[in-house]
Amino acid sequence: MPFAAILFDAYGTLFDVGSVRAAAERAFPGRGAALSGLWRDKQLQYSWLRTLAGRYADFWQVTGEALDFAVAALDLGLDEATRGMLMAEYERLTPFADTAPMLEAIGSRGLPLAVLSNGTPHMLEAAFTYAGLRQHFVALISVDAARQFKVAAVAYQLAVDHFGVDPAALLLVSSNGWDVAGAAAFGLQTFWVNRQGAPVERLGVEPTGIGRTLADLPRWLDERG
Amino acid sequence: MPFAAILFDAYGTLFDVGSVRAAAERAFPGRGAALSGLWRDKQLQYSWLRTLAGRYADFWQVTGEALDFAVAALDLGLDEATRGMLMAEYERLTPFADTAPMLEAIGSRGLPLAVLSNGTPHMLEAAFTYAGLRQHFVALISVDAARQFKVAAVAYQLAVDHFGVDPAALLLVSSNGWDVAGAAAFGLQTFWVNRQGAPVERLGVEPTGIGRTLADLPRWLDERG
Repeated sequence: MPFAAILFDAYGTLFDVGSVRAAAERAFPGRGAALSGLWRDKQLQYSWLRTLAGRYADFWQVTGEALDFAVAALDLGLDEATRGMLMAEYERLTPFADTAPMLEAIGSRGLPLAVLSNGTPHMLEAAFTYAGLRQHFVALISVDAARQFKVAAVAYQLAVDHFGVDPAALLLVSSNGWDVAGAAAFGLQTFWVNRQGAPVERLGVEPTGIGRTLADLPRWLDERG
Repeated sequence: MPFAAILFDAYGTLFDVGSVRAAAERAFPGRGAALSGLWRDKQLQYSWLRTLAGRYADFWQVTGEALDFAVAALDLGLDEATRGMLMAEYERLTPFADTAPMLEAIGSRGLPLAVLSNGTPHMLEAAFTYAGLRQHFVALISVDAARQFKVAAVAYQLAVDHFGVDPAALLLVSSNGWDVAGAAAFGLQTFWVNRQGAPVERLGVEPTGIGRTLADLPRWLDERG
């Protein structure tokens, strides 16, 4: 079945959240990798825990709280100016090198492309505009409208409602194995950009397709015809 | 308000899940710490993701799937015998050194003690019996009855239903900061055994009490009168 639209995860898939590391390294020389790694882990963990506990807060707040925890856990002091500088990185994330070429290659197919992300509408508009990628997408769909983060079903349902098609007519592209598993469990088709060469998450579902970089996506779509 | 009962988390609170490390080290010399650490991280992550996605599988299955992922991610081969040996460790976990003395100290207060855990009924009965601790508890409450893992509200509700009291009349004791936050969000009183000296999780709630070891719990209860 041809796809009615393609959905992209943002953080870690189109944007390299590792690009935050450089800013963290400037603020805390020698601790940038540790800080950015723990910050990202906590950001995801808090998104899951808040959704499970029924205590939604938007991704900007969750991202800030994850930063506060990470800084405290690593015994770093954080003044307001540095905090503001680090948070601002989320509005000017660096896209992966393969992001723009893939979007251009895939754009010629005439399929509508959209983003489906945990980020707030403001965070998404800011980052995609800053990166010069906004024009590729018919919609930046934020889970904020459902007030639950991925992998809750209502988060994926937003895309189904937006396009008014069956879940199986949508392809979700993500580098996050847990996102791919959640989307597949929900009923979307999925393409996993397995940048790290990681094993498939053991969550009882398999991705529809797997590549190593975003450049593998146009090829995979071609093969499907 | 005096408590009607005290609930204990099992893994990481009464039992040292780090005790799995020794078995992992025997199976994979030099890789025991990496394997047991990733195994535990994935076990928790899968419990949250499966609950969010509405795809519950019991904690024995989740623990096994987390092991399979961790072994694959670390490029280790795992035969059935080794897998069985590692999984069996969850039925004979080592209690922390402060567990039995605390249970004895607290037992004299006449308060009913119970366990509220992600573990299956079988896993809990096996581990508490093997450790010689089963007699301290009036109930080993498994979230399996609710088919959702902590920090879903229904998991904590099981304890409320069991004792037939207000949530605020129950004290949950846990070393897991995320568990303490989930229980507090639900409305239980909480005591965080902060063994690692970690910061409080930034999830919008605070523990009622904090200690560094389980030995701090009887003292804290005495101070409350």
